[in-house]
Amino acid sequence: MSSYTHVIVGLDLSSESKQIMEKAKFLAESSNAKLSVAHIIEPLLFTYGGDIPMDISSIQDQIHTQAKIDLQKIGDEFGIEQENQHISIGQPATELHELAAKEKADLIIVGSHGRHGLSLILGSTSNSVLHGSHCDVLAVRVNQG
Amino acid sequence: MSSYTHVIVGLDLSSESKQIMEKAKFLAESSNAKLSVAHIIEPLLFTYGGDIPMDISSIQDQIHTQAKIDLQKIGDEFGIEQENQHISIGQPATELHELAAKEKADLIIVGSHGRHGLSLILGSTSNSVLHGSHCDVLAVRVNQG
Repeated sequence: MSSYTHVIVGLDLSSESKQIMEKAKFLAESSNAKLSVAHIIEPLLFTYGGDIPMDISSIQDQIHTQAKIDLQKIGDEFGIEQENQHISIGQPATELHELAAKEKADLIIVGSHGRHGLSLILGSTSNSVLHGSHCDVLAVRVNQG
Repeated sequence: MSSYTHVIVGLDLSSESKQIMEKAKFLAESSNAKLSVAHIIEPLLFTYGGDIPMDISSIQDQIHTQAKIDLQKIGDEFGIEQENQHISIGQPATELHELAAKEKADLIIVGSHGRHGLSLILGSTSNSVLHGSHCDVLAVRVNQG
């Protein structure tokens, strides 16, 4: 098989997400493939450590709610049905792999800009999107605004 | 621009090259893009060190000649004209970047299978195909025969 059947785009919901989506939509349409979007929220405990005594569950909820709104906005713009909009919490590469495997995706698309974007692909080798992926990975170079 | 204009495929000329080429050809045709192939020969001095007193220039020549034959075979099979078949000697990621920049390519495709394939993409961060690339990079997961 030289074309794709299901393309999953991992988005950080930054302003560059649109550039990535435009390319993803083109590629999915070329292959007549299903297009899904995913946003992975990294757990706050991981990000800020657990030594600050505060209730983070409400912040986590707010982040989740905002992400859902932002992802839906992109979904609406690019004609992606709600059932193909995924949000999960965890380590981005791991979550993307699991989602891709569960959804039988054959192409994962992620953005890449400088160090931040690269970390999603490269990360530590064992956690990178590429490593451990059983499908193709496209890194779309985004121009920072 | 959501489609591509010039796709360069970096091939190691192994038996998996055909799988990568089939995908590359499909993507290039979808975008109505030019398709080029490249094989980078790593210098023998780098690979084996320089402490063995032997004339390596003839070996290097033989490798170059064989690579040219193999690349041309693939080129013929996928309808790629000789002027779009590139062979150079150096560090694969660096050479691919330079070629992509020179040829104004907007997508580099490389194969990825286990550690060997990954090293081309990941390598050390500074030497990876992704790092330092000004265009998109697609890692095609190949099934080893």
